[in-house]
Amino acid sequence: MTDGERVAVYPGSFDPLTCGHADIVDRALRLADRLIVAVAETSTERKDAMFTVPERVELIRAVYPDQDRLEVTSFSGLLVDFARDRGARILVRGLRAVSDFEYEFQMAQMNRSLWPEVETIFMAPDNQYTFLSASLVREVARLEGDVSEYVPGPVLDRMARRLGPSVRGS
Amino acid sequence: MTDGERVAVYPGSFDPLTCGHADIVDRALRLADRLIVAVAETSTERKDAMFTVPERVELIRAVYPDQDRLEVTSFSGLLVDFARDRGARILVRGLRAVSDFEYEFQMAQMNRSLWPEVETIFMAPDNQYTFLSASLVREVARLEGDVSEYVPGPVLDRMARRLGPSVRGS
Amino acid sequence: MTDGERVAVYPGSFDPLTCGHADIVDRALRLADRLIVAVAETSTERKDAMFTVPERVELIRAVYPDQDRLEVTSFSGLLVDFARDRGARILVRGLRAVSDFEYEFQMAQMNRSLWPEVETIFMAPDNQYTFLSASLVREVARLEGDVSEYVPGPVLDRMARRLGPSVRGS
Amino acid sequence: MTDGERVAVYPGSFDPLTCGHADIVDRALRLADRLIVAVAETSTERKDAMFTVPERVELIRAVYPDQDRLEVTSFSGLLVDFARDRGARILVRGLRAVSDFEYEFQMAQMNRSLWPEVETIFMAPDNQYTFLSASLVREVARLEGDVSEYVPGPVLDRMARRLGPSVRGS
Amino acid sequence: MTDGERVAVYPGSFDPLTCGHADIVDRALRLADRLIVAVAETSTERKDAMFTVPERVELIRAVYPDQDRLEVTSFSGLLVDFARDRGARILVRGLRAVSDFEYEFQMAQMNRSLWPEVETIFMAPDNQYTFLSASLVREVARLEGDVSEYVPGPVLDRMARRLGPSVRGS
Amino acid sequence: MTDGERVAVYPGSFDPLTCGHADIVDRALRLADRLIVAVAETSTERKDAMFTVPERVELIRAVYPDQDRLEVTSFSGLLVDFARDRGARILVRGLRAVSDFEYEFQMAQMNRSLWPEVETIFMAPDNQYTFLSASLVREVARLEGDVSEYVPGPVLDRMARRLGPSVRGS
Repeated sequence: MTDGERVAVYPGSFDPLTCGHADIVDRALRLADRLIVAVAETSTERKDAMFTVPERVELIRAVYPDQDRLEVTSFSGLLVDFARDRGARILVRGLRAVSDFEYEFQMAQMNRSLWPEVETIFMAPDNQYTFLSASLVREVARLEGDVSEYVPGPVLDRMARRLGPSVRGS
Repeated sequence: MTDGERVAVYPGSFDPLTCGHADIVDRALRLADRLIVAVAETSTERKDAMFTVPERVELIRAVYPDQDRLEVTSFSGLLVDFARDRGARILVRGLRAVSDFEYEFQMAQMNRSLWPEVETIFMAPDNQYTFLSASLVREVARLEGDVSEYVPGPVLDRMARRLGPSVRGS
Repeated sequence: MTDGERVAVYPGSFDPLTCGHADIVDRALRLADRLIVAVAETSTERKDAMFTVPERVELIRAVYPDQDRLEVTSFSGLLVDFARDRGARILVRGLRAVSDFEYEFQMAQMNRSLWPEVETIFMAPDNQYTFLSASLVREVARLEGDVSEYVPGPVLDRMARRLGPSVRGS
Repeated sequence: MTDGERVAVYPGSFDPLTCGHADIVDRALRLADRLIVAVAETSTERKDAMFTVPERVELIRAVYPDQDRLEVTSFSGLLVDFARDRGARILVRGLRAVSDFEYEFQMAQMNRSLWPEVETIFMAPDNQYTFLSASLVREVARLEGDVSEYVPGPVLDRMARRLGPSVRGS
Repeated sequence: MTDGERVAVYPGSFDPLTCGHADIVDRALRLADRLIVAVAETSTERKDAMFTVPERVELIRAVYPDQDRLEVTSFSGLLVDFARDRGARILVRGLRAVSDFEYEFQMAQMNRSLWPEVETIFMAPDNQYTFLSASLVREVARLEGDVSEYVPGPVLDRMARRLGPSVRGS
Repeated sequence: MTDGERVAVYPGSFDPLTCGHADIVDRALRLADRLIVAVAETSTERKDAMFTVPERVELIRAVYPDQDRLEVTSFSGLLVDFARDRGARILVRGLRAVSDFEYEFQMAQMNRSLWPEVETIFMAPDNQYTFLSASLVREVARLEGDVSEYVPGPVLDRMARRLGPSVRGS
């Protein structure tokens, strides 16, 4: 992998992109030449979804308007197939807690089994984000709590339009 | 980090380098342009040490005689100071189990606190090595067990000279 | 917090209150001047719910008929908003297992982030209750198992009226 | 338990039986005189189920056509009641990860509480299967991934008939 | 393993045998035809050891004076070699906590790698003993605490002779 | 416990008191009327100790010169005996990670077994301190790293006198 550029995929649901996700994006951009943030399309939309997959893609793009080494897209099917099609042999995952670790480890072994050339690398978000998760952000926002410190500006704007000004703490 | 080469440090005790360590070295070489395997010198040698730090360095070099993107050396002092001196902003650590994870996570946060530009990436060894540890290899070898499947050839040769042919299972 | 009384909130689903919950209530009453057991109203009732929120409140009151330092109520919205309204700066949570711990820790950090004056304290139930959970009690009762050792008398009575005498082991 | 034969029950969902499950079956057959693989009937079929309970029973039987010490059946109600009816005082469970462990431990204590004579023994599958789970197999198969290394031949045949040849990697 | 008797080995330090260990011995006797409690001789005696290896063997024998299916002995060298010499293909280990689990799992995989015919089974002690460990018992006893509920009678007698009546809580 | 004052003990090694410890002290002072920080005297001083027990007591006192609800002292023997002598029925422990949790949980159960009236409450330090430990601070300081953000001022002053200005990052 010394020749050619290193392309990494950061897959997830990103409903919505949190500051913890954004922190991992920033870190992954230091390691890879190009980073593809890939929003997973699932056959059955989760009933507590906040944004559709196209909305999530659009929101992530709005957070990084000028980062030309970053691509945001959605994918369906097996993650390793998507990565192979895109010439990406690195998968990036954030780890916050032990429970993350076990599931992620299992997925990494499965993905390696499905495509031996792929490598999963795990990164830790900044300490201040270790308690953050998208589902917690959705829950707090729906209970009219202030989430302005947990999501990037463009995400907050969209949430405010949908859920009202309470998400700004106002 | 788009310009210049990506230099990573894989620090550890490596007493001795196991097949699990070697697996991580191989994987890290796919991510970094140059990899420095760095054997930590500790102020007090552990009483159950098998090889001295210079011996460990020499053994790791013997395992990778022709890999010119790999450097093997020892270091003392803070790991982040060593990395900074070497122009390396990536630390590589292998994760096998939850107990690894917590300690490694703590160290990664401490290292980031000491030098914000450094990034630790965690990688999973191949499934067959998840139970391997250098201390377990030392213990089995001392109890005259066969460790030929757990360490690379040059390490096994040296262990056989020191502990006798039992380490080869013969 | 040396002046005024210490008010603590013990939030949960309590569907139903188990002996493990009751054990935590007893312990929390030693730490706080007043304890509010707060049953969370969720927007969507879980499909495997056994009792409605008002029934759960009534049942918990029936378990503690004469404890005048204990209040039982339900709440909706953010827990920290409820606590603040009630002048409570202590949240009480029981911990049984590592998986509890991670989730609870995450929630505690989120709650502290939402209202810095609140403090979550974790307590361990008696050893004999570490395997108990309300969902396990519901499952055993529905499969006609004996749950008489896992729930307080008033809860058992109500379960027997609903599910039949099998919950008493008879 | 020195007189009479040792009968063990290996309960689960087995939707479908994976190579990891089969590995535990093989190991349990070394410990017990007779082994009952017991597929749990649940009141509400999970919406992502792949096979019905009778299909799962039939598939497991097809994997072990000539093993006369093995019985495959389904059960409803409490597991300990089923085991007692069958004269089985040993429950077998596979452990892959810490998260398995906590849930299984809790279940083992509950089952022991419900019937003190029952004993749960935990076994570890072969290293190569520690990342496997039936839900992961279902997910990969539905995304048209190759699962031929994760399930026994008769299970793969049935999955291919249902989902098409992609599950064979062809 | 349907012919011949099932011999199991329960290895450990047993310094001293606690009620938690004794609980596992009782459970293992239900699974195996013969059980060998095997006290590990270590090359370097731990500095905080309470009893010598021969003393520990003698104490365990005193706890089970009439159990003729139980053998108590010490061993040195690899556990799997000891087991093989004794015709034992089952290793028994007690699990109390997640931290136990990971280490034990690692050892089980290593032992299986060293001798594929050996099988490790894990058992859970009674709930009331999940917090017990021999090292905790030693520490409490040395601080003149009452350990009468944590060790069997013959062990308590010996500890009282060595450390004084405080270990009986008197 | 509604009459009389609530006295809590926060036991530990405190070699040295870190900002994470101080954070727990501040939180515990909100819950208890009086807090006793109790430095454990161990029979054998750990060889990597930085300060003696009297020095640690003196340092903690220097961090809280004017907090009259706080007492700092050392203790030997069983913690529960010390607490009982001081009229304290609350033990405070900080939890950072899963590995903390398991050990602390075990200790809490043992202490409750030794003295049923004592209650252990667990608290989480601020997010920014979850990676901090006294042993890590000692290690970084000895490797001439900057620990000025990890220990309170009076502790840093003392460490600088002993180890030189490197601990201030200068």
